[in-house]
Amino acid sequence: MSRLFLRTLRDDPADAEVPSHKLLVRAGYVRRVAPGIYSWLPLGLKVLAKVERIIREEMESIGAQEVRFPALLPREPYEASNRWTEYGPNLFRLKDRKGNDMLLGPTHEEMFALLVKDLYSSYKDLPLSLFQIQTKYRDEARPRAGILRGREFIMKDSYSFDIDDAGLERSYQAHREAYIRIFDRLGFEYVIVKADSGAMGGSASEEFLAVSETGEDTFVRSAGGYAANVEAVTTVVPDAIPLDGLPAAHVEQTPGTPTIETLVAHLNEAFPRDDRPWEGSDTLKNVLVILRHPDGTREPLAIGLPGDREVDAKRLEAFAAPAEVEAFDDKDFAANPALVKGYIGPEALGLESASGIRYLLDPRVVEGSSWVTGANVSGSHVIDLVAGRDFTADGTIEAAEVRVGDPAPDGSGPLELARGIEMGHIFQLGRKYAEVLDLKVLDENGKLVTVTMGSYGVGVSRAVAAVAEYAHDDAGLIWPRELAPFDVHLIVAGKDETVVAGAEQVYADLVGEGFDVLFDDRLGKVSPGVKFKDAELIGVPTIVVVGKGFVDGVVEVKDRATGERQDVPLADLISTLRG
Amino acid sequence: MSRLFLRTLRDDPADAEVPSHKLLVRAGYVRRVAPGIYSWLPLGLKVLAKVERIIREEMESIGAQEVRFPALLPREPYEASNRWTEYGPNLFRLKDRKGNDMLLGPTHEEMFALLVKDLYSSYKDLPLSLFQIQTKYRDEARPRAGILRGREFIMKDSYSFDIDDAGLERSYQAHREAYIRIFDRLGFEYVIVKADSGAMGGSASEEFLAVSETGEDTFVRSAGGYAANVEAVTTVVPDAIPLDGLPAAHVEQTPGTPTIETLVAHLNEAFPRDDRPWEGSDTLKNVLVILRHPDGTREPLAIGLPGDREVDAKRLEAFAAPAEVEAFDDKDFAANPALVKGYIGPEALGLESASGIRYLLDPRVVEGSSWVTGANVSGSHVIDLVAGRDFTADGTIEAAEVRVGDPAPDGSGPLELARGIEMGHIFQLGRKYAEVLDLKVLDENGKLVTVTMGSYGVGVSRAVAAVAEYAHDDAGLIWPRELAPFDVHLIVAGKDETVVAGAEQVYADLVGEGFDVLFDDRLGKVSPGVKFKDAELIGVPTIVVVGKGFVDGVVEVKDRATGERQDVPLADLISTLRG
Repeated sequence: MSRLFLRTLRDDPADAEVPSHKLLVRAGYVRRVAPGIYSWLPLGLKVLAKVERIIREEMESIGAQEVRFPALLPREPYEASNRWTEYGPNLFRLKDRKGNDMLLGPTHEEMFALLVKDLYSSYKDLPLSLFQIQTKYRDEARPRAGILRGREFIMKDSYSFDIDDAGLERSYQAHREAYIRIFDRLGFEYVIVKADSGAMGGSASEEFLAVSETGEDTFVRSAGGYAANVEAVTTVVPDAIPLDGLPAAHVEQTPGTPTIETLVAHLNEAFPRDDRPWEGSDTLKNVLVILRHPDGTREPLAIGLPGDREVDAKRLEAFAAPAEVEAFDDKDFAANPALVKGYIGPEALGLESASGIRYLLDPRVVEGSSWVTGANVSGSHVIDLVAGRDFTADGTIEAAEVRVGDPAPDGSGPLELARGIEMGHIFQLGRKYAEVLDLKVLDENGKLVTVTMGSYGVGVSRAVAAVAEYAHDDAGLIWPRELAPFDVHLIVAGKDETVVAGAEQVYADLVGEGFDVLFDDRLGKVSPGVKFKDAELIGVPTIVVVGKGFVDGVVEVKDRATGERQDVPLADLISTLRG
Repeated sequence: MSRLFLRTLRDDPADAEVPSHKLLVRAGYVRRVAPGIYSWLPLGLKVLAKVERIIREEMESIGAQEVRFPALLPREPYEASNRWTEYGPNLFRLKDRKGNDMLLGPTHEEMFALLVKDLYSSYKDLPLSLFQIQTKYRDEARPRAGILRGREFIMKDSYSFDIDDAGLERSYQAHREAYIRIFDRLGFEYVIVKADSGAMGGSASEEFLAVSETGEDTFVRSAGGYAANVEAVTTVVPDAIPLDGLPAAHVEQTPGTPTIETLVAHLNEAFPRDDRPWEGSDTLKNVLVILRHPDGTREPLAIGLPGDREVDAKRLEAFAAPAEVEAFDDKDFAANPALVKGYIGPEALGLESASGIRYLLDPRVVEGSSWVTGANVSGSHVIDLVAGRDFTADGTIEAAEVRVGDPAPDGSGPLELARGIEMGHIFQLGRKYAEVLDLKVLDENGKLVTVTMGSYGVGVSRAVAAVAEYAHDDAGLIWPRELAPFDVHLIVAGKDETVVAGAEQVYADLVGEGFDVLFDDRLGKVSPGVKFKDAELIGVPTIVVVGKGFVDGVVEVKDRATGERQDVPLADLISTLRG
């Protein structure tokens, strides 16, 4: 450590919110260069290499072959798939000296499809799985949490190529199993959840989420085994209600009730129900947003949902992709005089209405359900407005928040909510990319058929942060043995010549026995206390202290994770470490 | 090979000129994505990894510590060093979604200096050497020769940090020795040449050139041991000649002599010398060029040199950097009426002259030397114009071509010319970057002193091509054992069940003994002839053929480099391969 390029820091970086970010910077694993862009210092690079090795081994175990694409790519293939446009501002675009459009690759479906098209031509060449471990780029709007969500990051991405759906299913399952082994070896708690695959155009997909309170992704699970990310949860739709005999709709004065809360209070005061009080879930709230499409056009959208639920930003974003969601602001209200803010009702909404704004309903708004909703007149609501009788919409939308206790769509019980970090994503892409890029091979009958693809990603640099997020305490990082930058952290505690010489001998012995040892040989004003603190912060799993006991032939061995200490006779040190 | 992602190609790629480019593409090591941008296929990636391992081992052997910077970098540090501008069109520039200027790193002097500044503060922290193996970007005007000169490429770059010049000299020598070991292990012929270090602002620098007829760099060497790249060669300056008694200059009619050749012919006819015929070296040619500075301004420059020598583009570019050299065209002549095309003489040149154009002389134009040169009148030249008596210039310039037989500047004999590929470059940078980025540490007396830096690069992806350029024949690649993608290329020649089963057993045995084996197990219509051709093309050093002899317990072992074949009893195969 007297020569290691490392300075541990006492204070958390000012921009750090999550533990992995704080600790990886403080312990000298990574260093910020720009927002979402980090350098790897010697300790961090060692951990990163170990994560890469695990992933490489497991990918090779399923017969995937490693290649490496450039990060700087031409526009044309991404134009063919329309992702040049669809990626919007998330794509780093640039021009070369000749004015050609280029991009920094966010993911490589197009390039892999073209490479296979380039070299292969027969069903005999398939199945094929290729992977790369490579630097990727996304110009995130909100880079955060250090290397957990960067703009330059390392991913393992792989792609499978099969002649038919059954082959794709096999390739998908092989990847799924490899991913399970990878994440088991990385050592953090994770869940596999159903994922929304809309943006990638695929048919089936699952995410591997590291369970973490600080995670950006919300997922749900039921005791019965259902798990999905919040974007993929589908609403359990109530049965339709017969229209016969339902009371007629009637408009009522509801002055000063622009919010659901004020409306419910007013209803219970002025129009009390016989059976029970009015609740938020009796009202139909109409929320307006703007979708900004990749080509820059702005489309207003109205979402009708029970008044007791908010629109979930992530679910709406997943629905809207590749469009981005923006607020419907005063300017937009001014441009749509049919809309009365706070009192918007279905009559003013829909492609066929006065406003012409597309109107989508939460799936709970089934035919025959009765609602209190805006009457499109300031201070007025309509009561007993019945879906399918008094109003219709342009379709349904899964955008309402999912709540604890909501039923799982597969009937496996009520849902719980939890948070996680997306660590892996597996997709059955199908033929979307192969079709636009014309990736065909000859089948057994000599007929050209389109190849079907899978796409599979693991966040490699993110995994370093996810492990840190899972394995740490207040004092610092706690690396699992397979990922730790060193096997042993050796501390010389004391300036006595015998002790220093003894520690050097222990160091030489350990290295001779094949241990990778971080030796804190710092003398001078670095106290044993500082050394202990640094060791806890850095998080090597085993700490060996050569101190006062050395004159009696004893060293201390400490387990970083459990805190357990034991005095070990020098002669037994190697066997103790080998455990 | 029945499953390896590989298709060998019969034909050379259309854009390939040099053998390494042709063979690496044909043998399935790399594949083009865009001009100067390549993907690595499985075989290529294996060789690349072996090159990286050699470099990593040798860098670690001199105590250099590995880190990794991002490729996507903010503008500011490069603004501080002025390289944001100086790199001109060679730099890939882009803007992020917030409009911030960013770049793709061509080299990382600034970033390393800032990192050390960030973490270190004392002379006790030094010396320090850091390195990275990382993807770099340069928007080459003429990307060529496959991965030999790409726009995205992999480099090992390292940087040393020392408190004083003696420390820098030690760090430089340590790198120099590590580089010698690296290039010895890579196995191609190389030379170490003195290099021009102007553009990097350093004080001393050397290049490691792989000797290759197809190389882009010309270098010189003498039998006495002098070696330099052509940019760094200095001219041996003749002694000045006393001015006393030299004949006076006289203008003569020389109609129709706009070239040196026509001028010399005319001189010998109309004004014959007593002692010997006139030669091109008696004339003073004045060549005009435009320097385009990084800020876009165009500066005309006149170069006066003996008429028998051309201006060397590389030497002039090295002189001009960071400005780029452009032609002085008709428009420029029109803008400078003092210049008479074909008859330009010193009188019309120089900052103080009518044209105001900066005028630099070849060092051979010493005081007292007499010249025939343009008289600034069409069809007229001046004879016996004496440097230092009749004309002066604004300085000297090393831009004339270096020729076989020119004397080495160190007196070690006449120079030969050869060509090479720049594989490594070591620089004593000094304090240039440390000064602009304020990298200072406290010295022993508690005084702040500026750190002195070295910068050292190896082309990693280029090394794969340089080895291929050195080690190939008409049939294909010939990898040295330490870099080969596999240890053994095993061919089953024949469809006989015994032979096929035997080859599979040999494969299992070799793998069991730790050999990395490429097994050509292809059946069907792939003939033994095709397999042999592919084996020669791919270039694994040892080829083992299981064929007819197998029934007698014999296999053939062929050395790819020498072509030597031997029949080896199965029982002796392992020991034969172990050599």
